[in-house]
Amino acid sequence: MWQILEKGNITSPLGFQATGIACGIKKAAKDLALLYSKTTAQAAGVFTTNQVKAAPLLVSQQNLEQGQIQAVVINSGNANACTGAKGLEDAWTMAEETAQVLNLSKEKVVVASTGVIGFPLPIGKVQEGIKLASKNLSEQGGQAAAEAIMTTDTFPKQIALTMDLDGKKVTLAGMAKGSGMIHPNMATMLGFITTDAAVVDGFLAELLKKAINKSFNMITVDGDTSTNDMVVIMANGLAGNKPLNKESAEVEKFSAALEYLTIYLAQQIVKDGEGASKLVEIQVKNALTESDAKKAAMSVATSSLVKTAIFGQDANWGRVIAAVGYSGAEIRAEKIDIFLTSAAGKEQMAQAGGGLAFDEEKAKKILAEKEIGIIVDLQLGEQDAQVWTCDLTYDYVKINAHYRS
Amino acid sequence: MWQILEKGNITSPLGFQATGIACGIKKAAKDLALLYSKTTAQAAGVFTTNQVKAAPLLVSQQNLEQGQIQAVVINSGNANACTGAKGLEDAWTMAEETAQVLNLSKEKVVVASTGVIGFPLPIGKVQEGIKLASKNLSEQGGQAAAEAIMTTDTFPKQIALTMDLDGKKVTLAGMAKGSGMIHPNMATMLGFITTDAAVVDGFLAELLKKAINKSFNMITVDGDTSTNDMVVIMANGLAGNKPLNKESAEVEKFSAALEYLTIYLAQQIVKDGEGASKLVEIQVKNALTESDAKKAAMSVATSSLVKTAIFGQDANWGRVIAAVGYSGAEIRAEKIDIFLTSAAGKEQMAQAGGGLAFDEEKAKKILAEKEIGIIVDLQLGEQDAQVWTCDLTYDYVKINAHYRS
Repeated sequence: MWQILEKGNITSPLGFQATGIACGIKKAAKDLALLYSKTTAQAAGVFTTNQVKAAPLLVSQQNLEQGQIQAVVINSGNANACTGAKGLEDAWTMAEETAQVLNLSKEKVVVASTGVIGFPLPIGKVQEGIKLASKNLSEQGGQAAAEAIMTTDTFPKQIALTMDLDGKKVTLAGMAKGSGMIHPNMATMLGFITTDAAVVDGFLAELLKKAINKSFNMITVDGDTSTNDMVVIMANGLAGNKPLNKESAEVEKFSAALEYLTIYLAQQIVKDGEGASKLVEIQVKNALTESDAKKAAMSVATSSLVKTAIFGQDANWGRVIAAVGYSGAEIRAEKIDIFLTSAAGKEQMAQAGGGLAFDEEKAKKILAEKEIGIIVDLQLGEQDAQVWTCDLTYDYVKINAHYRS
Repeated sequence: MWQILEKGNITSPLGFQATGIACGIKKAAKDLALLYSKTTAQAAGVFTTNQVKAAPLLVSQQNLEQGQIQAVVINSGNANACTGAKGLEDAWTMAEETAQVLNLSKEKVVVASTGVIGFPLPIGKVQEGIKLASKNLSEQGGQAAAEAIMTTDTFPKQIALTMDLDGKKVTLAGMAKGSGMIHPNMATMLGFITTDAAVVDGFLAELLKKAINKSFNMITVDGDTSTNDMVVIMANGLAGNKPLNKESAEVEKFSAALEYLTIYLAQQIVKDGEGASKLVEIQVKNALTESDAKKAAMSVATSSLVKTAIFGQDANWGRVIAAVGYSGAEIRAEKIDIFLTSAAGKEQMAQAGGGLAFDEEKAKKILAEKEIGIIVDLQLGEQDAQVWTCDLTYDYVKINAHYRS
């Protein structure tokens, strides 16, 4: 249905330019990214549910209300969160500076920040950075932008897909950052998606929300929801396809590609989670409701005991069933089957709520892989959910306890 | 209002006998405790909210419905959880064997287990152990019982208080076990409380529930709720006080002593949490509702990012305010004050939701102590909550990832 573009990135779709530069928030690394669409783009965003919201989110939420933007400016190294009235003023200054250098109105700019909480943004450096960035915008700048939004991410996270919609080549691309900062305070997740697809007014938010609920909302590194989480999509229509709407024949194809792209980026974030050594997929099957399936899967995914057992490569299914038991999902303990799976094979651990005399050697081999699956079959209904998490390791403790050393 | 008894334990109140012996579930340690009251005692219990409940809980819940028991039998090393019909049969066999050797009806026995999930109980060994234990019951056996319920606990947890009620000396005692097992699967919390106070029929459950809500329900080691949690109280009335009821002049004194005792045991459990190096008290003040106060405090207490920061002795208040923000409690970010406190002093980190230029050296000294307090003042209402947690350390990961080595 779609092809993955080799070395594809956020500037792969028609009409998008980007760059990433160093403005001096970090000691010696890129810390400011600028993303620009040559024409006004349909846009939509989703934001953290944390009641403590960083200043840039307030600006971006307001600007996205009218559904059209043309630029995104992102700094790393400072979250501009818990910074009061000055923080909000600084976030607006970022929008205004970006608008000025790109000759836009400030309402056409989305602002995002990630980094330490509670310290004032060095706004002078950021303003100089925006000026510099505007001179460096290019259609080859996607890679630099993906690098500039990193904090303690160990690799940039980006992807681009192409597909055919009504005989037109449409490109869909995204970049994201995950957990960790130079001076970390928490795992902030940022995602930016571009496409040259044409989409009718107001429809993009619906498409985005649907994809997010299967991807970025289905991952966890440590259960801590950031003050700065944000995902934004821009669609500038330059591919020339018939604008997508609810009834389009092609909307399912685009929607599936968007879901694939967001799941890919979400999984990259988990793989690069602080201290992570394994990607773990939790599948809960046959729950009564979708909400129950997600509750049960998230409970397993956030259990420190499950996450340490995966790190220790121990087939400790008792911790899995216990996490399902306290998840709040409707269950019958005596119906639950539990399986472990990976490239090395599949083994059933528990049947009808009780332990099986499983093959310990095979379980060890399954758990030795880098990508592990845990399947919990509730056998109550017909609803499924998939959630991705990582293991809990010594390095997670190290990164979060000793980052100042 | 009350005195702490030196070397006090579960058999300090009049008429209670206990013992702890090794029956062979563990390789070479005590693993079976028996607690007996010479006369029938008023009794009440609280049980895990996990929907996956171990077999002994089903037996104990049923037997506690009539409100009177005379003995408690506890094994460590095997949780008898997820063990199906055979597990339930084994739990009843424990009650029956205990009833037989003590000449009681099986409905007068509470059964508890802690240890690995999903393995059949070696019931023959347990039956032999109960016979042996019954011959070893004594008024000096409280210490041995507290040792026999330990798993990877590093010290026994016990306390006894005496107070005067209506001119009669009343003794109140308790023992508990916390997080960690010889072959661990999760942190099971067990608590047993004895008193020679007289209490009217049915009133004990209310007293227990009130105390639990301020103590055992206010602690967290890793956020995982066990399948086996249980707290039981027995009151045999041998102190000869006027039976306590809702209107008793002395009920507040007894209730306060019970709260003190349960908080003491709960704190001991957190101090001895798996890998813990620090006891952390989270106080949330001036919430709109008690539920909001607890939600906010629990959210901070279970945040892996807060817990690793405490381990690293870093005054990372941004993680605290973020955890309050996603707790679900009603808050106004711009009103929140945050303080750090310990025996080394007190320092304000944040005021009205923004960071203060606090004294980093002083904060380091505060955080170097073994017992730390975090105070979050929401400045919205008048409700407070206190929750206790421990730090998240390398040893937590080690204990839970590598226990088979």
